[in-house]
Amino acid sequence: MEARWGKLARARNPVFKAPIPMSLSTAEIIAQLTALLGPGGVIADPAQMGAYLNEPRKRFHVPAIAVGLPATVEQVQAIARFANEHGVGLIPQGGNTGLVGAQVPLRGDEVIISLSRLDKVRAIDIAAGTMTVEAGMILENAHKAAEAEGAMFPLWLASQGSARIGGVLSSNAGGVNVLAFGNARELCMGVEAVLADGRLYQGLSSLKKDNTGYDLKDLLVGAEGTLGIITAATLKIFPQPEEFETALVNVASPEVALTLFQSLRERAGSRLNAFELIPWIGLDIQLRHGMLDRDPTAGPSPWYALVEISRMKGGTSGALQSALEAAFETGLVDNAVIAESLADRTRMWDFREQMSECQSREGASIKHDVSVPIAAVPQLIAEGSIAAQRVVPGIRPVPFGHMGDGNIHFNFSQPVGADGKAFMAGAEPVHAAIYEIVLKLGGSVSAEHGIGQLKTELLKQVKDPVALEMMHAIKNALDPKGIMNPGKMLG
Amino acid sequence: MEARWGKLARARNPVFKAPIPMSLSTAEIIAQLTALLGPGGVIADPAQMGAYLNEPRKRFHVPAIAVGLPATVEQVQAIARFANEHGVGLIPQGGNTGLVGAQVPLRGDEVIISLSRLDKVRAIDIAAGTMTVEAGMILENAHKAAEAEGAMFPLWLASQGSARIGGVLSSNAGGVNVLAFGNARELCMGVEAVLADGRLYQGLSSLKKDNTGYDLKDLLVGAEGTLGIITAATLKIFPQPEEFETALVNVASPEVALTLFQSLRERAGSRLNAFELIPWIGLDIQLRHGMLDRDPTAGPSPWYALVEISRMKGGTSGALQSALEAAFETGLVDNAVIAESLADRTRMWDFREQMSECQSREGASIKHDVSVPIAAVPQLIAEGSIAAQRVVPGIRPVPFGHMGDGNIHFNFSQPVGADGKAFMAGAEPVHAAIYEIVLKLGGSVSAEHGIGQLKTELLKQVKDPVALEMMHAIKNALDPKGIMNPGKMLG
Repeated sequence: MEARWGKLARARNPVFKAPIPMSLSTAEIIAQLTALLGPGGVIADPAQMGAYLNEPRKRFHVPAIAVGLPATVEQVQAIARFANEHGVGLIPQGGNTGLVGAQVPLRGDEVIISLSRLDKVRAIDIAAGTMTVEAGMILENAHKAAEAEGAMFPLWLASQGSARIGGVLSSNAGGVNVLAFGNARELCMGVEAVLADGRLYQGLSSLKKDNTGYDLKDLLVGAEGTLGIITAATLKIFPQPEEFETALVNVASPEVALTLFQSLRERAGSRLNAFELIPWIGLDIQLRHGMLDRDPTAGPSPWYALVEISRMKGGTSGALQSALEAAFETGLVDNAVIAESLADRTRMWDFREQMSECQSREGASIKHDVSVPIAAVPQLIAEGSIAAQRVVPGIRPVPFGHMGDGNIHFNFSQPVGADGKAFMAGAEPVHAAIYEIVLKLGGSVSAEHGIGQLKTELLKQVKDPVALEMMHAIKNALDPKGIMNPGKMLG
Repeated sequence: MEARWGKLARARNPVFKAPIPMSLSTAEIIAQLTALLGPGGVIADPAQMGAYLNEPRKRFHVPAIAVGLPATVEQVQAIARFANEHGVGLIPQGGNTGLVGAQVPLRGDEVIISLSRLDKVRAIDIAAGTMTVEAGMILENAHKAAEAEGAMFPLWLASQGSARIGGVLSSNAGGVNVLAFGNARELCMGVEAVLADGRLYQGLSSLKKDNTGYDLKDLLVGAEGTLGIITAATLKIFPQPEEFETALVNVASPEVALTLFQSLRERAGSRLNAFELIPWIGLDIQLRHGMLDRDPTAGPSPWYALVEISRMKGGTSGALQSALEAAFETGLVDNAVIAESLADRTRMWDFREQMSECQSREGASIKHDVSVPIAAVPQLIAEGSIAAQRVVPGIRPVPFGHMGDGNIHFNFSQPVGADGKAFMAGAEPVHAAIYEIVLKLGGSVSAEHGIGQLKTELLKQVKDPVALEMMHAIKNALDPKGIMNPGKMLG
């Protein structure tokens, strides 16, 4: 991708657009929704809408007309038919854990459709390796449903206790096991979705191979609810490994981490589940703020790699140990801790999963969810850290994340003692500096969090213009009145 | 999927549609193509078009106006602009190995665009695990390009010596390693494509994670050239395993094969590369016709499973041996041959790869490329064999293929001594019987070969009607004049 770089300042100030002229008043919309869903299926009191409006980073503060809580797919269809007829914008919402504002209002005249009541398992087929669940199922409950049958649904996110399958799919969520199992798109075999005009697309499938037409599943997955409302999905489930071998490895630099990653990938192939990079500052913050009961590492190191290999039934134990011994012998690494208990493993993963949260203990932070070809990760971190420090002297780089996927959460904590608000007010040039390097390296400005309303202007600046035209053409073809999550992704 | 079953007879007799009115004569089209591509870039003499018109099964016999052989992406764009302006149908073609007629004319007024001159490697990045090649590269050359760098591109087809990457992607080809590595769609990270009006979609990408918009790559992959002409693709490449462990296992029935598959999958996870099912009749035919220098199996058995496990660097040898020993101990299987040399392994794979070809030695055959959820494969084979034998007494079932993917090539050889032409003339009720069972089991009537022109009517009968409407809407949005591979897939 060539760098197409414009005025970034626009990206962070989405224009508050005038509502589409509607034929119905707010009261009429609420009355119609209540007729369709029953009084228990509609929240119209602003005082009760907080859980649906306040997203994790508290960046968006636009009201909704109401929240609809359909209990059946037919009710979702009925809402869509009504909304399409009267030009009412619908915002599909799962667990409200998205980080780019796709699931909350943009204009103030939309109705949020929460899928939370559609939360059942429809079928589990261990032999086929599939599980069909409704869109409102909480991700952690999907894990439990698979585990109850002796299988594994390997999509793990920090927000898995709240995130729901429909949102996970609509945002094409990633997480810590993408390396071995792929992102949400790759873990989904088929979806059922309500289209803008209320038609039901019946694309549930347990087939690994089916070449009968365009790939509509992958179009709906990752569309952030702009093409339809996913109501159910068939997910891939896998045999549970016998064991996970987990280690925290001291690495001298991102370059060393890259070499270690490649040697582990050669040895373990797809059994290498996770390869996460964490900088020393993350350990320092977590220890200082009492977020870990003890240091899970082998001692101070500029960087740590959290690596995990799975062992299948009948396989030999110790694959990670021997791989790390090989790395010691070549002098690549000189210290590491291998988890010897579940408590050890849990502590290592807590250390990783608390990376995002721990930054708030140190004041304000400027965040970027970016990816580059994996070989370019060291260059991204080196150049990005210098560039940001040039813009804001004393800024503290906290780059961490899914190194094995080339996906770094390139975050920056405010200088020690600085004013948080002033720091955030100066975020724009930091964004510009980081995104410029990302684009130069052929990377993505949104690796896993998506576009939502936060990055619509940024998307217009960096995306292939023909790709944008194709996206608009598809959007207009499937949602000609523009009622599905209006203004999101495409602006 | 519910069975929606109509008059299947229509499916095999595509109506010869009247050409779209064009503003240009045949001579004018040829003159314009020659102006765009040079005299060496156009074949207009019907005597020289054979290689582009005669597809593998010799089922389609419609002429083309000409064959265009663009040497650059810009020339592909110029042809599309010209064709879109004048309503000339374009048929993208790779190695002309497709089995459903997607790559050959339907009406007689189309121009074939052969991508064969666009056959270069653009880039290989071992560290990123990616390779970017042009659409005209022969699949086997893509294998060689990866191997030359110590990597592996794991898409293996019987036709790999002729099939080209653009066709492999446009048909979302499968092959024998889908189990471990996925089909063509999963092995492709991004594509470059010329749209109907000549615009160039620049979607090449080496990013494992990029959530910036709709999944246009997966829409173009598998679209059989109806949405645009793929000109290049970024493919995933993998570390070469240290070793393949390969065995031919005698299995008493498809049920036993299913149980064996599940136990191997539990043990080997994604290192289980292949699990292919072959019936005894396939061995019998190949030995009788001298297609194998010797019997690669452990002796007569109603069924054989060809299984292969890969061993990565540092892994322990003998995983397949110990897995099979476990199967012996439980009494699941009682005989098998493990390959002890490359020659052994090659003979086992020859046995598998010759399954399609060997049927022609026994006269005519009726073929179905179908998939069901894997647990339903035994039921499919049992019910399908009986149903076909009821329709044609003496018909010989030859079901074989990718059992691990639920994808069976459910073929039938003519009764011994029957008249081949008369047998084929009675194919319709056999198709109907097989597809009815496939649909009852929630399966697909085209697992990996696609729709092309062979199955357009069948598709209309069995596909979710809303999915068909969505496909038409997308087709009209991206190719409003309908010039891209007209009449294919959507009819």
